[in-house]
Amino acid sequence: MTTVEIIVTGNELLLGDVLDTNTNWVCRRITAFGGRVERAVIVHDDLAAIVCEIRACLERFARLVITIGGMGPTQDDVTVAAVAAALHRPLALHPEALAIVRRQYEQFARDGAVDDPTITPAREKMAHLPVGATPLDNPVGAAPGVLLETDTSAIVCLPGVPAELKGIFEGALQPVLQRIFGASVFLEQLALVNCKDESVLAPVLQAVAEQHPDVYLKSRAQRFGPDVKFRVTLSTAGPSRSIADQRIAAAVQELQRALGAVGISVESIEEQIR
Amino acid sequence: MTTVEIIVTGNELLLGDVLDTNTNWVCRRITAFGGRVERAVIVHDDLAAIVCEIRACLERFARLVITIGGMGPTQDDVTVAAVAAALHRPLALHPEALAIVRRQYEQFARDGAVDDPTITPAREKMAHLPVGATPLDNPVGAAPGVLLETDTSAIVCLPGVPAELKGIFEGALQPVLQRIFGASVFLEQLALVNCKDESVLAPVLQAVAEQHPDVYLKSRAQRFGPDVKFRVTLSTAGPSRSIADQRIAAAVQELQRALGAVGISVESIEEQIR
Repeated sequence: MTTVEIIVTGNELLLGDVLDTNTNWVCRRITAFGGRVERAVIVHDDLAAIVCEIRACLERFARLVITIGGMGPTQDDVTVAAVAAALHRPLALHPEALAIVRRQYEQFARDGAVDDPTITPAREKMAHLPVGATPLDNPVGAAPGVLLETDTSAIVCLPGVPAELKGIFEGALQPVLQRIFGASVFLEQLALVNCKDESVLAPVLQAVAEQHPDVYLKSRAQRFGPDVKFRVTLSTAGPSRSIADQRIAAAVQELQRALGAVGISVESIEEQIR
Repeated sequence: MTTVEIIVTGNELLLGDVLDTNTNWVCRRITAFGGRVERAVIVHDDLAAIVCEIRACLERFARLVITIGGMGPTQDDVTVAAVAAALHRPLALHPEALAIVRRQYEQFARDGAVDDPTITPAREKMAHLPVGATPLDNPVGAAPGVLLETDTSAIVCLPGVPAELKGIFEGALQPVLQRIFGASVFLEQLALVNCKDESVLAPVLQAVAEQHPDVYLKSRAQRFGPDVKFRVTLSTAGPSRSIADQRIAAAVQELQRALGAVGISVESIEEQIR
C-alpha cells in the first residue's frame, strides 16, 4: 500500500475563517491513484510546527508527503523553509523556479493584476528551494510547486489557492504520481440495501469485513422519499487491476450471501467511477 | 492562551468521499470563545492511530482535546474506546448515557426512523464510556457526547454528524466551555486597504506584526469590480476584553501609520462579529 500524508498550513483555517477544501480534493485524487491517505493535519504557519509534522511523516515512512499552503511571497509563508529545515538542506535560488515566477508576474502585469512585474525580494523568495529540489510549474499563480525526494519518501509542496494546487497537481505533478503509484488502482462498488437500521446491518458488515480485510466496507443511511435505505460501499486499493477486481468480487459475493441470510435484499450494485 | 486540539476520525474523509466541515465549524466557535486551535488532524477509524493522537495531544498539554466522529453503533466506530485506551481506563456501561440512548431510540421509533426501539448490543455500545467520564446529552442523534477530564486536559468526544455535533456543542458542552475559557475573548478588526499587490503590502504587515506579536495579521486579496483590494484582518485572543481591546487598538494605529508612510490608504476599519 502506497501511503500518503498531508500537511496543511494556514492560521486562517484554524481560526475557522476559511474552510479547507483542498484536503478533500487531494484525498479523492490520491485514492483514485490507488494510494492511501493515512493522515491529514492542519497546523499554523509556524516553522517549528511544520518541521515537526514533516519529520513525523518521514519517520512513519510515508511514501508521499504533500504539504498544502504557505508558499506565497509573505514572511508568514514558511512551508518551503520548513521542508528545507526538516531535511537539513539550505535554501537556494533555483533558476528554473525563478523563470516560472518571472513568467507569471509578467503575465499578471499584462492582465493588469499587478502594476509592475519586477522581481522584488518578496517575489524572489518563492524561487528559493531546498537544495536538490525540483520546481513544479504553476500555470495559475506565482509560486512554483516543489518536489524533493529522499531515499524513502517524496515531499511535494503545493500552494493553498485551490486553482493553483489543482493546476500543479494535474499538470507537472502527474508524471511523479504515475511513477509513485505505478499500476495501483482503486475500485469501488456501491450496493443499495433495503434496510433502514444501521444497528441491524452492522453485524453483517462486520462479519464480511473480517473475512475480507483488504476491502473497506462502509454503510451510510440515505433518505429515498419517505424511505431510509443504506448505501454500502466496498472499496479496495490494489497493486493491479486484476487483484483489485478479485478482492472486490469476492467481498460483494459474500455481502450478498450474508445479507440474504438475515432477510435483507440488495437492490442494486454498481461500480463507482471517480 | 487556552490551547485546543482537534482529532477527526473517518475513513470516508481520507478517501475523499466526504468533505469535513466540522473542523471549520468547531475552529470558528473555539476562536470566538478566545481559544486557540493549535492543530487539527484527520485519521482513519483505527484504534491505534487515534490512541496515538490523543496521547500526543495530552503530552503537548492541550487544555481541550476534541474528537469528532467514530461514536456510532458499528464496530468500526472506535473513538470512545480509543480515549479509554489512551487514558488506561476501562469502558463501562454508564446509566445516564444509556438513558439518553434509550430516549433517542424511542423518539426514532415514534418518528418511524427505526422499526424497533429495543436496545440491542450495538446500540448499548454507545452508552459505554471510559470510567470517570460524563455523557453530554445529544438532542439529535443516539450517541451521547463524552467528557473526560484529567489533571491538565479535558477530552470531549463529539459525533461526526454535523447536526449532532452542533446540538451537543451548543447545548450540554456550553457550561464546560465557559469554565475552560473563562473571560477569554476574541477580537477582530477588518481593514480594507487600497493596494492590489501583496508583495508591496507584505513588508509593512510584517513590520507591524513584529511590533505586535499578540496580534495576528493576515491579508487577503479580494476583487471589487475590476479592482483588487486587500482585506487585512487583525485579531487577538486575550484573557479579558480590556486587554484584547488595548492590543488591537495599538496594532491598528501602527498599521495605519505604517501604510500611510508608503502611500497606501486605509479605506475602512470595522470590528468583525462572529
